Amino acid sequence: MKRKKLVIIGSGPAGYTAAIYAARACLEPVLFEGFYSGLPGGQLMSTTDVENYPGFPEAVTGPEMMKMFKKQALKFGTHCLLEDVKLVDLKQRPFLVEGMKTSFHADSIIISTGATAKRLDIPGTHDDELWQKGVSACAVCDGALPIFRDKDLYVVGGGDSAMEEALFLTKYAKKVHIVHRRGEFRASKIMAERVLKHHKIEVLWDSTVDSVSGKDYVEHVTILNLKTEAKTKRHAGGLFFAVGHVPNVQFLNGQLPLTPNGYLMVKPGTTETEIPGVFAAGDVQDFVYRQAITAAGTGCMAALEAERYLASIGLDE
Amino acid sequence: MKRKKLVIIGSGPAGYTAAIYAARACLEPVLFEGFYSGLPGGQLMSTTDVENYPGFPEAVTGPEMMKMFKKQALKFGTHCLLEDVKLVDLKQRPFLVEGMKTSFHADSIIISTGATAKRLDIPGTHDDELWQKGVSACAVCDGALPIFRDKDLYVVGGGDSAMEEALFLTKYAKKVHIVHRRGEFRASKIMAERVLKHHKIEVLWDSTVDSVSGKDYVEHVTILNLKTEAKTKRHAGGLFFAVGHVPNVQFLNGQLPLTPNGYLMVKPGTTETEIPGVFAAGDVQDFVYRQAITAAGTGCMAALEAERYLASIGLDE
Repeated sequence: MKRKKLVIIGSGPAGYTAAIYAARACLEPVLFEGFYSGLPGGQLMSTTDVENYPGFPEAVTGPEMMKMFKKQALKFGTHCLLEDVKLVDLKQRPFLVEGMKTSFHADSIIISTGATAKRLDIPGTHDDELWQKGVSACAVCDGALPIFRDKDLYVVGGGDSAMEEALFLTKYAKKVHIVHRRGEFRASKIMAERVLKHHKIEVLWDSTVDSVSGKDYVEHVTILNLKTEAKTKRHAGGLFFAVGHVPNVQFLNGQLPLTPNGYLMVKPGTTETEIPGVFAAGDVQDFVYRQAITAAGTGCMAALEAERYLASIGLDE
Repeated sequence: MKRKKLVIIGSGPAGYTAAIYAARACLEPVLFEGFYSGLPGGQLMSTTDVENYPGFPEAVTGPEMMKMFKKQALKFGTHCLLEDVKLVDLKQRPFLVEGMKTSFHADSIIISTGATAKRLDIPGTHDDELWQKGVSACAVCDGALPIFRDKDLYVVGGGDSAMEEALFLTKYAKKVHIVHRRGEFRASKIMAERVLKHHKIEVLWDSTVDSVSGKDYVEHVTILNLKTEAKTKRHAGGLFFAVGHVPNVQFLNGQLPLTPNGYLMVKPGTTETEIPGVFAAGDVQDFVYRQAITAAGTGCMAALEAERYLASIGLDE
């Protein structure tokens, strides 16, 4: 089994950026891009236009952007593997990283496996239906797109992030409708109050989205009132899931401490985990900002920290 | 005097990124790009090729990149002003931001005025001479460029960052020579030891660089030994200043707490300063990572935090 100075697990903006920096620093990183559990490239692979990654005044698609990140990582000598990591062993030194086909001993590891936005299993919202054609799991990413302007937009959820997404969408929408399965929000009081007094927001209590329909884009949502069991078909220009994210930490098997909501815990302002030599970057450790640019920033931090760590144990050559 | 929801002070990757996010969130930001004290666009305006900003597999020049950042900020409605900020008053609400020509009341402020790499006043190193033609103030930014490969590179300085830059350059250089005016380093012991035992590093104690010369690029440095007063002309492919940075905080007149080394203090992992509504992003608050991508990441964070702050005080519309 080969021994590597640095293995990077996960291939979104954080992973590729870590690779660019590490490869330029001659650490010859190996990058597990993932394969079985989804597309390599992270959440951006399922978005359309990215307007807010700085440096691209003309919008770029998520997949195009990830292609450029990868090209840059390869250019400086990153070794990319299109496979998932099955397990890691952080108790032995060097660490063990076991992929589906390829395994390594690693002196340092950067974990950048991201998070997955939860979606609900609603007819009309699936990948081969209207997903990314008016159905989104990120209002901040997609809300400003022209297709949502002055439309009736529906948000599913009842927590703080649903409140935030709904308030964010009021900037563009004709009206925002929050669909919530209970009779009150679990969001913080201040956020809930702001939503409830907002003239552009309507709340559909005790309700779920039964189905979504439209020809090329979302045109209608059907709302099911759980109390009356009445179904109502309504005009809609978009549907946003705001039912949370799941950080992709399963393969770690509890070897690193998590925050109360399940994200990897890092020393604030750094990417250091509790285990020296193991760093975490991007959405797997971020439940606050979650943007491509912030993920890339922490990817860079992780590479610089890995480099310093390797130097400190005399393994920088 | 006009009242603005958000005023951003400083125009490098942090400032423009904050503007892109804030403008997309309809905060109609004003961005003071600076003018009198230097080029708008920050330290990247004085670099050549940027190879490590993710998304640009073909290197882009610093000024080109900042042009794209600015274009993107303008596209979403940022109001850019080519002037310096003279003073701010953070004691009144809304805050006061006084530019050279234009002044505003501001409900929130993002400070992204950056830091300036110190340069020494050595003949041959000035802007109209060999600056950026083999003379640099950032080994991590420039060290991997082809012009420095397998050359004799000179680093001026004696602190931790000089050690780091010298060690970094060993990856590319034929030999690295550290020029230090004293007989010992003030760097940490571990860093100094790593430098001293490195086979590719030579230290020129009690010495300064007297002058730099070359036709199109650095070809020679002349070293002055301060004890013997002997001058020696040596072949050289590059000269790197590693004598520290100065964060640009003068205009704040001590209204915000600083770290012991003079940078703006933020709550770790955020861009919040001690004053609610005032945020700091980029190199003005970062003496660790200092990369374009990390600065842009914190610019995004600052905009999201400013947006939440404005919403929390009911000023998001």
